[in-house]
Amino acid sequence: MVKKASCGLDFPAGTDIRTSLNFASENGYSFISLPIAHPRYKRDLSKGRADPAYLAFTRSDLLLSCQDWNYMVIGKISDYIDVDSSCEEVRKESEEIFLQEFMYALHLGLPAVTLTLDSQPKPNLARLIYNQSIHEYQISIWIHVPMVSPQVLADDYRQDKICDDSDPWDWWNNFKLMCNSDKRLGVALQVTADLPSEEVITRWFGEPIKVIVIPTSIFLTNKKGFPVLSLAHQAFIRRCAYFGYQMLLNGNSKHSSIKHYLQYLNHLYQTSTQHENTAPYSKGFEDHLQIPLQPLMDNLESSTYEVFERDPVKYTEYKRAIFKALQDRVPDNEASTNVQVVMVVGAGRGPLVNAALEAAVKAERKIRCYAVEKNPNALVTLFSLKAEEWGEKVEVVGSDMRVWEAPEKCDILVSELLGSFGDNELSPECLDGAQKFLKDDGISIPCKYTSYLCPTQSSKLFNEARATNTGDKPQIAKFEMPYVVYQVNTYTIAPAKSLFTFIHPNKDKNQDNRRYGILKFHVEQDSVLNGFSGYFDTVLYKDVTLSIVPHSYSTGMFSWFPIFFPLKEPVKLKKGDELEVHFWRLCDKKSVWYEWSITKPVIVPVHNPNGRSYNIGLL
Amino acid sequence: MVKKASCGLDFPAGTDIRTSLNFASENGYSFISLPIAHPRYKRDLSKGRADPAYLAFTRSDLLLSCQDWNYMVIGKISDYIDVDSSCEEVRKESEEIFLQEFMYALHLGLPAVTLTLDSQPKPNLARLIYNQSIHEYQISIWIHVPMVSPQVLADDYRQDKICDDSDPWDWWNNFKLMCNSDKRLGVALQVTADLPSEEVITRWFGEPIKVIVIPTSIFLTNKKGFPVLSLAHQAFIRRCAYFGYQMLLNGNSKHSSIKHYLQYLNHLYQTSTQHENTAPYSKGFEDHLQIPLQPLMDNLESSTYEVFERDPVKYTEYKRAIFKALQDRVPDNEASTNVQVVMVVGAGRGPLVNAALEAAVKAERKIRCYAVEKNPNALVTLFSLKAEEWGEKVEVVGSDMRVWEAPEKCDILVSELLGSFGDNELSPECLDGAQKFLKDDGISIPCKYTSYLCPTQSSKLFNEARATNTGDKPQIAKFEMPYVVYQVNTYTIAPAKSLFTFIHPNKDKNQDNRRYGILKFHVEQDSVLNGFSGYFDTVLYKDVTLSIVPHSYSTGMFSWFPIFFPLKEPVKLKKGDELEVHFWRLCDKKSVWYEWSITKPVIVPVHNPNGRSYNIGLL
Repeated sequence: MVKKASCGLDFPAGTDIRTSLNFASENGYSFISLPIAHPRYKRDLSKGRADPAYLAFTRSDLLLSCQDWNYMVIGKISDYIDVDSSCEEVRKESEEIFLQEFMYALHLGLPAVTLTLDSQPKPNLARLIYNQSIHEYQISIWIHVPMVSPQVLADDYRQDKICDDSDPWDWWNNFKLMCNSDKRLGVALQVTADLPSEEVITRWFGEPIKVIVIPTSIFLTNKKGFPVLSLAHQAFIRRCAYFGYQMLLNGNSKHSSIKHYLQYLNHLYQTSTQHENTAPYSKGFEDHLQIPLQPLMDNLESSTYEVFERDPVKYTEYKRAIFKALQDRVPDNEASTNVQVVMVVGAGRGPLVNAALEAAVKAERKIRCYAVEKNPNALVTLFSLKAEEWGEKVEVVGSDMRVWEAPEKCDILVSELLGSFGDNELSPECLDGAQKFLKDDGISIPCKYTSYLCPTQSSKLFNEARATNTGDKPQIAKFEMPYVVYQVNTYTIAPAKSLFTFIHPNKDKNQDNRRYGILKFHVEQDSVLNGFSGYFDTVLYKDVTLSIVPHSYSTGMFSWFPIFFPLKEPVKLKKGDELEVHFWRLCDKKSVWYEWSITKPVIVPVHNPNGRSYNIGLL
Repeated sequence: MVKKASCGLDFPAGTDIRTSLNFASENGYSFISLPIAHPRYKRDLSKGRADPAYLAFTRSDLLLSCQDWNYMVIGKISDYIDVDSSCEEVRKESEEIFLQEFMYALHLGLPAVTLTLDSQPKPNLARLIYNQSIHEYQISIWIHVPMVSPQVLADDYRQDKICDDSDPWDWWNNFKLMCNSDKRLGVALQVTADLPSEEVITRWFGEPIKVIVIPTSIFLTNKKGFPVLSLAHQAFIRRCAYFGYQMLLNGNSKHSSIKHYLQYLNHLYQTSTQHENTAPYSKGFEDHLQIPLQPLMDNLESSTYEVFERDPVKYTEYKRAIFKALQDRVPDNEASTNVQVVMVVGAGRGPLVNAALEAAVKAERKIRCYAVEKNPNALVTLFSLKAEEWGEKVEVVGSDMRVWEAPEKCDILVSELLGSFGDNELSPECLDGAQKFLKDDGISIPCKYTSYLCPTQSSKLFNEARATNTGDKPQIAKFEMPYVVYQVNTYTIAPAKSLFTFIHPNKDKNQDNRRYGILKFHVEQDSVLNGFSGYFDTVLYKDVTLSIVPHSYSTGMFSWFPIFFPLKEPVKLKKGDELEVHFWRLCDKKSVWYEWSITKPVIVPVHNPNGRSYNIGLL
């Protein structure tokens, strides 16, 4: 994780840009922020637009190299501009001045401009920004909002009087939705003297925060005279450090040197802890959408096997499960005579075969093992392992488990066919086909698995889904297929609930793997629903389990990232709402698919009807 | 440029892969090439497809890490496979074995597989490869062809008997066209003892060469016993070094150590010379398509100005031209009294204003200068320069030159409005508008410019155009718009010829900037036409000129890359063909555009009719 803060320094209007940049660099700051328009050139619109008094409105681009403009300077749009003024003259002049400054920022190639929002709605500002085809440029628009509104900070002692528009997240959220959640929009989140509730803070971490603005006024002074933050602020900055957010210091230095603020922030960065459930393996995968595997239609590649075989938890747990099952089925006194048949179906390159062989040695039980695999490329590896290591202990079978005609029935059927959402790689269909060669009292490992779902807010995932290339499919497909994704920049609106469960062997006469589930979630605070995150847990055997559900995660396991089912349009939720979501697992002869929709608090039409955008092939 | 050869070592069937890789690495080679199928595992199809004798056809993927498979190993498809056999049984078995090997290469994640072509057409092999959705994978298919066919090498003394299918370029080209010129297809070009003619070699440099295969048999031995190449081979390898091609050494070592071949090849790489007309500025832009600027509709950015202002040639030549014009218009005896008016139209950030001021000092003539510019962002710079440097000498005017009402007429009208194709940034239209404030005997600098065109073969540019994202426009647009591109991996089918000329001031009563030109080119050898490369030259004043036409290039100038007009479909040309191309420059009130078509040797319909895919806006 990022261990050094990238921190900028904010300057007021009128400072010399070269001097400011040198001062910031000398003190270790990475960039500066200052007004685009220079007050020396006061714009005079009365003389007409061709007059130098209007045209020469700011400093020359020759003052810095393009390199510096492109990487070191954030431009502030003049804060007296009011493009949403009810006075038409003010509005029109404001629009003109806004565009002049914005276009100049594009001319300079600035990485970002900042704009300040307050409780007043700014629909005309949103339109102006959205009209500028900002997605065609590299520039970002950072929306400056405080964590707590000034009004609330002032009225702290009479909470009952707070009006509805006092939530700065709401200001930001409404503005963002007006701009169609454009990915170029980000938050410049200003830390306030008081911090909001934990829930409100957590919700901000689901937003595209680009910079944390830290006023010098919130710093305290320690015994040695250096700037420090309160414990609550320290904790907040350390959490920001986890995400690697940039910082921006503003306000006058209240201490001996501006350098000490940065040193202190760097100290907080270096002492920040890792996020729960993360490990080096997930580095670089943050919020990166992947299309789920189609293991029945496509053959996995060597590198895929290699990565998954390295999981330090999964195969240990399988070994424990097989060990227990072997001991349970054959008492000690029969151990030397009773040979159990273990069939590994979907053996890949053999990790479960090794787990079974090792478990048998440890359990002091005799086994005869079959390794059934349909991928011809993995079979090359299996035959090579048989020739060089396994010998007579293992029979390698090149076949699809659903059609194989086994020479005998097995005691234990071992498989690892689960996806991020449990059944989504068609484990139910495969094991239903394979259980015909499981003895009537035989054991399936795993014997049970359940999918889980929770509502998720994430502009980041919404924008990633929107940017997906659907190839030959219609554009709608990008919002009608699930993605496997390590989710970081998200806010969980309500905890995950269980959805579909499958049990093996499946003793039902009418084997039917279709499912329909309705889940209800309580909305704790105003939020925006962008989709649903999916997880699973599984019982391998008795008390041996695996889980990627947040509240029961198998620590250290890395074989699965969560799944994400997007929604076409963001859905605004209010505190206290009940959210009702419908999920279907459906199938025909060729494939299996999910459909999903919402009935409360608003109706959202069924996504992926008939599997039109995404399905998992059976053939 | 690349100064060290990336060279692989080819191994025959049956060698141990780990040993081979270690041997290659120890001797400095970067990768190895060896057959995908290992002969130890002889495939036996007679026992059925589920038998280990068929399934276990090669070595296990566990022998190397994925990292090594992904970067260090090129797989050779078995060369006894004949998927184009007239014997149905051989054909079907060959197809099966081919797919088995190809799929295994995908499984391993090899960077490339190689296939050998000979004079026999291979339509079924092309179909098989094209069917494998190779564009969805990272793998490349390297087609191994000799520079001269074995038959020609053998029949050297009776040239008259050579049959039509003796040209290896033809084998490759037909195969490539069958595969729709897929960008994953590349050439593994085998150097032969005799080299073909200069023309044939040059044509190869227009193909996607992925590796140069060098047999040890072509090396000679110098006095000290080390391997060296003939002068002709040396020259060829040095040219390959310029392009940074990889090498692959094959055959047994005929000298004391395999290391010495690589040392010698590295020596040739290090002594290779730079390509004509290239400079560091073009690094990274090789064959990278850019959409031409729209300077009338879009405002140039600060970084664009910054780059172009650094051109070491252009402004020196403008200064020389202005110097000569100033002296020509006012004799020495009037120098102190006669003040000439110089108007720079499209002044940008002022480089031509500085050129004019410096020329005046050097010419000892007095001038009054106007800087006319429509870009409000550049005007900020111009006003700043006036305030800090120019003072009364320069009047800055914020206006479009076409509508400006000048307070007086000028002696010299200076502009730099030329694009890569001369008139394609609408210099004619702008100067026609500006010449109303040029005195009747006034001088326009430039006073004349001409566009040039030549037919170009380049699978690379064809594939780059095909991969262009047309956004909201129809897919056809990618082949109906010109691109600005520094062209490297191309073959010039015939030298450039002049097309359209414009003269300023334009004294014609009916100012008409539409043009229609027909050019004829003689085809020197079999080739494939992918489009036309465009250039321009200009007369600034009298003998002061600028040119990006290959035969008259202004050395050191870097402001313009050539332009490229693509064709939807590649056109096969035969030696001796006459190629007739039609080019139009057309306009309406809003825009200007080009259309192009071919009438000989085949008809190619008009591209970009009515400017539907690309036009240059006047407003």
